[in-house]
Amino acid sequence: MMSWLRYEFRKLNWHVILNVIGHVLLALAGLLIAPLICGLIYHEDISSFVIVIILSLILGLPFSRVKVNHASYFARDGLMAVGLCWIVLSIIGALPFYLSGTIPHYIDALFEAVSGFTTTGSSILTEVESLPKCMLFWRSFTHWIGGMGILVFVLAILPKSNDRSMHILRAESLGPVIGKLVPRLRQSAMILYLMYMGLTIIEVILLLLGHMPLFDALCNTFGSAGTGGFSVTNQGIGEYHNAYYEWIIGIFMALFGVNFNFYFFLVIHDFKNAFKLEEVKTYFYVILTSTILITINILSMYKYDVVRSIRLAFFQVSSIITTTGFSSCNFDLWPTLSKMILLLLMVLGACAGSTGGGVKVSRMMIVVRRIKADIQRSVHPQKVKVITFDGKAVPEKVVDQIMSYFGCYILIMSICFFFVSIDGFDMETTISACVSCLGNIGPGFKVVGPFGNFHAFSDLSKLVLSLAMLIGRLEIFPILIFIAPLIGHGHKKKKRSKEEIYLYDENNI
Amino acid sequence: MMSWLRYEFRKLNWHVILNVIGHVLLALAGLLIAPLICGLIYHEDISSFVIVIILSLILGLPFSRVKVNHASYFARDGLMAVGLCWIVLSIIGALPFYLSGTIPHYIDALFEAVSGFTTTGSSILTEVESLPKCMLFWRSFTHWIGGMGILVFVLAILPKSNDRSMHILRAESLGPVIGKLVPRLRQSAMILYLMYMGLTIIEVILLLLGHMPLFDALCNTFGSAGTGGFSVTNQGIGEYHNAYYEWIIGIFMALFGVNFNFYFFLVIHDFKNAFKLEEVKTYFYVILTSTILITINILSMYKYDVVRSIRLAFFQVSSIITTTGFSSCNFDLWPTLSKMILLLLMVLGACAGSTGGGVKVSRMMIVVRRIKADIQRSVHPQKVKVITFDGKAVPEKVVDQIMSYFGCYILIMSICFFFVSIDGFDMETTISACVSCLGNIGPGFKVVGPFGNFHAFSDLSKLVLSLAMLIGRLEIFPILIFIAPLIGHGHKKKKRSKEEIYLYDENNI
Repeated sequence: MMSWLRYEFRKLNWHVILNVIGHVLLALAGLLIAPLICGLIYHEDISSFVIVIILSLILGLPFSRVKVNHASYFARDGLMAVGLCWIVLSIIGALPFYLSGTIPHYIDALFEAVSGFTTTGSSILTEVESLPKCMLFWRSFTHWIGGMGILVFVLAILPKSNDRSMHILRAESLGPVIGKLVPRLRQSAMILYLMYMGLTIIEVILLLLGHMPLFDALCNTFGSAGTGGFSVTNQGIGEYHNAYYEWIIGIFMALFGVNFNFYFFLVIHDFKNAFKLEEVKTYFYVILTSTILITINILSMYKYDVVRSIRLAFFQVSSIITTTGFSSCNFDLWPTLSKMILLLLMVLGACAGSTGGGVKVSRMMIVVRRIKADIQRSVHPQKVKVITFDGKAVPEKVVDQIMSYFGCYILIMSICFFFVSIDGFDMETTISACVSCLGNIGPGFKVVGPFGNFHAFSDLSKLVLSLAMLIGRLEIFPILIFIAPLIGHGHKKKKRSKEEIYLYDENNI
Repeated sequence: MMSWLRYEFRKLNWHVILNVIGHVLLALAGLLIAPLICGLIYHEDISSFVIVIILSLILGLPFSRVKVNHASYFARDGLMAVGLCWIVLSIIGALPFYLSGTIPHYIDALFEAVSGFTTTGSSILTEVESLPKCMLFWRSFTHWIGGMGILVFVLAILPKSNDRSMHILRAESLGPVIGKLVPRLRQSAMILYLMYMGLTIIEVILLLLGHMPLFDALCNTFGSAGTGGFSVTNQGIGEYHNAYYEWIIGIFMALFGVNFNFYFFLVIHDFKNAFKLEEVKTYFYVILTSTILITINILSMYKYDVVRSIRLAFFQVSSIITTTGFSSCNFDLWPTLSKMILLLLMVLGACAGSTGGGVKVSRMMIVVRRIKADIQRSVHPQKVKVITFDGKAVPEKVVDQIMSYFGCYILIMSICFFFVSIDGFDMETTISACVSCLGNIGPGFKVVGPFGNFHAFSDLSKLVLSLAMLIGRLEIFPILIFIAPLIGHGHKKKKRSKEEIYLYDENNI
């Protein structure tokens, strides 16, 4: 068994994988300078950041020097690289919290870091306002880093990255329909990050115009841009009691949940293609419908104040569908219908190619179309119905892979349910905690409700939920690859094809 | 739209469909004689049964005389026939409750009848012990009729049924892997019913040997044979306070959840094939594991009385995995881990080709194997992995259909969640009521817990849940066929192939 496991892992291209990890560590060292500067401004203890920066450099420099042989560079190497990078990122990203004593228990610090990078926004902290500013900054900044993806960042700044790195972009990006925006991969990654940064800056400026302090404006923007949900106040966005902030953040959360291809088409003035994107249309349609339904449902709770009800409903819908998890009020007190709509939006999630989590609108649309086609087939067995998306036929293989993803999602969810239920919290807490972590949302109901937290769970549950967050963020396969050799049987040695084989090639529709 | 709808429905072979409905009505008239006799014995008012028998005969006789042209008899006609039969059966089967005044509100009576025929066992009655004996008998008898399927019964007694009726057997039987036991269809149906009756009689005798009154023995056996769950006592099986009854009923529930192919192989002394059935092995393995886990989990609740804990755990696991829904204690008070295991068993369900509901063990096994194969494929894209079951390859098309079923199941569940949550019960009640009805289980948690009932729901919820029960029992497609013309678009007129096309043909593995 062990020797065979070794055989399976030896077949991977470790040169490429270690090289990528090295570059990610260097990028992490660079990114840690931001909270360090924040700490300097507020005269706080920054020793933990210095230690972690040095550690990242010591580990990162030799790895990044590993010579890469691009000739044998396969999809599974990309998956393994992405999976390992995120694990390394989480383990080292948790150290500032732990070393500074802000979060004295390492499992808790790890949970908080994973929750940050995966843009989940679930917290084990019961009280955040007493934390050092630099720690709050780092906590929110992890959302921004994780939102668009650290590997996409590395690809954008790395001069050597070539089109073979497509595997990595695909494995890290969210949703099934990520293609290159422009022929060159590096430019694609750069365009993505520029648009991401542009939207971020606009949100910060708009919040500053509403007289929000710069620190709060930055942290809340990081939270909404990465669709994360960590806040710098105990009671979340509601604590500002400012309708302007709620509208700005609500709208920007919704905008960050849009497929970035949409913005790309807008930027190049291709309005025809931009407004033809079916996923984006459906996404806004779902937001509109849910907001109207919830507004009507909660109207009586807020003394028939229509404007306030619309604002609260829109903010929460936008926050939950994009899996951000900000809250402007305690929606756990809303009627069951509203809570049920939010639970369904949690699972649905935002658009593919955005920073939001969940199953993704386009995946769900393809599943629904597949089911429609199957019902049609049961009535007219002779007709072969092709599933189309954005006017193009979706290859059968892609549809099958999406159905599998769906099955995996349910299966992993069940496993989480099982382990977390050992802690003995009520069913609603247990179920919503798992759904929330796997979907990278943040809050659930009851104990883990908008004003609750994950502090009370056992270490086992925290580890299981951390893994669920990673699996959710990386969309299952880059993490499951670790167990692939364990479930393999009856494998035969076959010679590798000389051509590159892209796992998600046909996703490029 | 309307004219096109008419066109879609006109293409169906209505001669066959009406003929089948006619025979089902005649069978119903015959079956209603049983509760009528029961009423005579107990000197109760039997006028409602007399009226319904006459009504069934008046409607059934002309329909059953409709001439059938077997030359054009397609899978979709079978689906439509089964769907319509079950709807007619429920509407007329509810009449005795309504006409006698036992259940004065017709929607309630319909819910109760649907719950009976679909072997769900959810009740709107708050108090059953005051009901007339003949009504209690009819209520339990509906489980027995629905368990193996009324159409299978009709096929078994109808001398004219030929192999073309396979569509009907497939559409009504549970699970993806129903084939004919012997080459002739009618004999297959008869063998199924004989085995079903044999097991039923053995259970009745064993209960009588434990001094259970004949009436109770019959009703409880109907409930466990059909894996239904209606009981003749308010507190269910626990009310007898008799460990012997609990063991007998627990064991027989588990036995009725086994794929009947297993018994057929036993009857013909083909032990090799019987013990090779992977689904049956997995089923017993799941029962064993769950029983052990729950026993350990509840041990402290029952003062470390190991024998009692094992009995309670086994009874409940057996009751929930087979989707019977009997309870020997209030499992809503058990720890969350035990409740979560039960919730997962609810969704899993029993074996294909048994009387139990849920997703079915074999379907879940194929989904898991498909996911495994997909993970393998992501690592070794060149390898084509074939999914096998019972040592044979499963055709791709069947696997795809199962994945679709899975997707449908989740989608329909979400729609139920939405409508039932309008009533404003807590999330746990709402979710477990929907899961319970769609899976044909019976009890859920909280308001619909083992000692609760569905009385408090609105008429809308009762109708939605009734539909969910039918969809669950008929495994989605025979009910969805009614909406198929509504979602069809871009259809072209194609000439029908002259050969018979079996929808589930490749399921015959």
